[in-house]
Amino acid sequence: MTTIVDVEVHDVRFPTAASGDGSDAINRGDYSATYVELTTDGGPTGTGFTFTNGRGNEITCAAVRALAHHVRGRTVAEIAAEPVAFWRSLAADVQLRWLGPEKGVIHMATGALVNAVWDLRAKLAGKPMWRLLAEMPTDELVATVDFHHITDALTPDEAAAILDKGRDGLADRLAGLERDGFPSYTTSVGWLGYPDEQVRALTRDAYAAGWRAMKMKVGGRIEDDLRRARIIRAEIGPDALLMMDANQVWDVDEAIAAMGVLAEVDPYWIEEPTHADDVLGHARIARAVTELTGGRCRVATGEVAANKVIFKQLLQAEAIGVMQIDACRVGGVDEVLAELLLAAKFGVPVCPHAGGVGLCEYVQHLAIFDHLRVGTSLDGRMVEYVDHLHEHFTDPVRTRDGRYLVPTVPGYSATMRPESIARFRFPDGPAWR
Amino acid sequence: MTTIVDVEVHDVRFPTAASGDGSDAINRGDYSATYVELTTDGGPTGTGFTFTNGRGNEITCAAVRALAHHVRGRTVAEIAAEPVAFWRSLAADVQLRWLGPEKGVIHMATGALVNAVWDLRAKLAGKPMWRLLAEMPTDELVATVDFHHITDALTPDEAAAILDKGRDGLADRLAGLERDGFPSYTTSVGWLGYPDEQVRALTRDAYAAGWRAMKMKVGGRIEDDLRRARIIRAEIGPDALLMMDANQVWDVDEAIAAMGVLAEVDPYWIEEPTHADDVLGHARIARAVTELTGGRCRVATGEVAANKVIFKQLLQAEAIGVMQIDACRVGGVDEVLAELLLAAKFGVPVCPHAGGVGLCEYVQHLAIFDHLRVGTSLDGRMVEYVDHLHEHFTDPVRTRDGRYLVPTVPGYSATMRPESIARFRFPDGPAWR
Repeated sequence: MTTIVDVEVHDVRFPTAASGDGSDAINRGDYSATYVELTTDGGPTGTGFTFTNGRGNEITCAAVRALAHHVRGRTVAEIAAEPVAFWRSLAADVQLRWLGPEKGVIHMATGALVNAVWDLRAKLAGKPMWRLLAEMPTDELVATVDFHHITDALTPDEAAAILDKGRDGLADRLAGLERDGFPSYTTSVGWLGYPDEQVRALTRDAYAAGWRAMKMKVGGRIEDDLRRARIIRAEIGPDALLMMDANQVWDVDEAIAAMGVLAEVDPYWIEEPTHADDVLGHARIARAVTELTGGRCRVATGEVAANKVIFKQLLQAEAIGVMQIDACRVGGVDEVLAELLLAAKFGVPVCPHAGGVGLCEYVQHLAIFDHLRVGTSLDGRMVEYVDHLHEHFTDPVRTRDGRYLVPTVPGYSATMRPESIARFRFPDGPAWR
Repeated sequence: MTTIVDVEVHDVRFPTAASGDGSDAINRGDYSATYVELTTDGGPTGTGFTFTNGRGNEITCAAVRALAHHVRGRTVAEIAAEPVAFWRSLAADVQLRWLGPEKGVIHMATGALVNAVWDLRAKLAGKPMWRLLAEMPTDELVATVDFHHITDALTPDEAAAILDKGRDGLADRLAGLERDGFPSYTTSVGWLGYPDEQVRALTRDAYAAGWRAMKMKVGGRIEDDLRRARIIRAEIGPDALLMMDANQVWDVDEAIAAMGVLAEVDPYWIEEPTHADDVLGHARIARAVTELTGGRCRVATGEVAANKVIFKQLLQAEAIGVMQIDACRVGGVDEVLAELLLAAKFGVPVCPHAGGVGLCEYVQHLAIFDHLRVGTSLDGRMVEYVDHLHEHFTDPVRTRDGRYLVPTVPGYSATMRPESIARFRFPDGPAWR
């Protein structure tokens, strides 16, 4: 019976802003992690984090400290026996809920803690996270989801039916993944901070390395966006997929106008065409883009979708053709489960958001679980891949020919190397002094 | 030329949780303020705050500190000349935006700073906030609004037309307000923490004091809600208005079922019937409630609406019949202006949320500006009133016969008494030691 005896938080920041890595229409930062360690009375240490963009990482750290009393002193068995009660103790704290509810700083901190508990559970079980989840009985998985505020779109019975059906063919799907890996795409070719020739060279390298799906940033001047898009399309030929990401910079009508121009290069999706909270705006853009491209292009969003209530509505309004869950924007694994089940119910493929710090490490588990146990096909499913900062993790992602290999180490792949934490701790680590 | 030389933040908390004041279906806290002082090179001090519910007030304080560099060293003239650029420096900081965007902790901190700047501007102009705004030329008011992400619902030209038309009859409306005050309603009668006899006694007192509109909390057991509602209705008679507030506790279908029961007591509105982010859910509830009550009851929400993009959608989806702006949930006066103009465009009355700490003090200015300069009628418009904590402000609200009297002191009525700050400062003030 393992007890969580303490919660430690580290403010870890990597100085990426200077290089233009990760620059887009709206963000330019130092990729950072609010990194949580749950120490136990003798067992392994549970680790989790939320990703931030540099400045303000101290705010999410403060939020973790404000929530830590809900975790400290709890036994893992207790939490596993009543997962919704545990989740609500964080997400619906009678005083802290006002700071969200279930959004932004306070919810990201909830996610860091919840994910650290899952990492601990997986380590105790001796299984990688995806396997721990995939092998759970249906009733245990359903009991992990807080259905509050989503029952108008998904009931516990519907969730159970999806998960029961998801058992069919699981062994075959697992064999396929272990043989071929999970499909992915790369975002490393077209950050807004990169000049044209760098975009061309990176695209050529990525294509040579086996990537057949690539994402570029748009939302600068439309003629610049189009010129860069043509460069990439020319390098990858007509059959590879080219995705675009506007990072919310456009108004609704601007997005529709821009896609009228960019349709020329046959984009596979337009990601974050407008403000992340604008469900109705996304729905209008989706209808327009479908019409503009004869259905060849779809709308994608999710990395900044605050919670499952936003995802529910994006699905209800038919606003998205691709759902991009994020592992630590929302309240951790429990809430992601709800989102995967909602997507399955509505028949929309999930392509997780990754990049940043450790997001690739996290989401590979979620995508694999989705395929294995929610029983979704690989058709239209890819995990984002960005080749940054993996060296700081003890169990970094491994890829081959543009596909993620199945993780095998127990846990949620969320553990950072102690020397990286020490070196990049803000503001006192040697990298920042 | 006044320069803001420093930004001070105080964590001020009032121990209200123990008394049951402010208790509802989802919140139970110590009413608190993240209180900001902008010191200047010789001029008055600008003050502003965001309201929180106790625990976590240190997180919004940290967020104010993270944003303060956008304010420190700026001149008031500079900010007034380019208000949208200033507002975006806070709301769209390239690193901090990730923590929202425009929601929760980081946006509430933006609001505290932005409101403090407005308080300073009003003090420098020697005018109460409502008058500073009401007397501004149309083009200056329009230039204060960031239309990014709302142009599909409201253009700058439409806003200008509303404000130009709003000048008609302004003097008469002002004379009316100065004679009669602004209508309000009271929420002090029916907190969930109060027993039946206390509810009856408070209702009787409020009615005797002139209140003809009262709000109760619902969302407990439906039979308890109904019993308490019957007590209040019996005390106030058939003609006074009875509003209900569920504080987001219901799922969409539960809300519809509960209103089927509570319709018996002829509620005027149902507030926050479900999750604050659920635009589509509110729209479904609004259609059902209209049908259940023959249009006598409407849906209200807004105190937890994260930003103008959420309000835009609530209006577009016809999800609300009453829009409840909050003075410090969103990014301050600039964003509230956008919300008032959106409401006017869609013809939905604004009844500001108040209570907490200092919210009554803030929103009276916004409601008066709405009536005077946006040119809206008083029909269906009321400001919430809660009789708590006014004694801590240097210019507290004044009411007469259930109406707010027009404030006359220069500023935004947001200045706390120094002795209150000292006494309730957390954790070192004498009230907390």
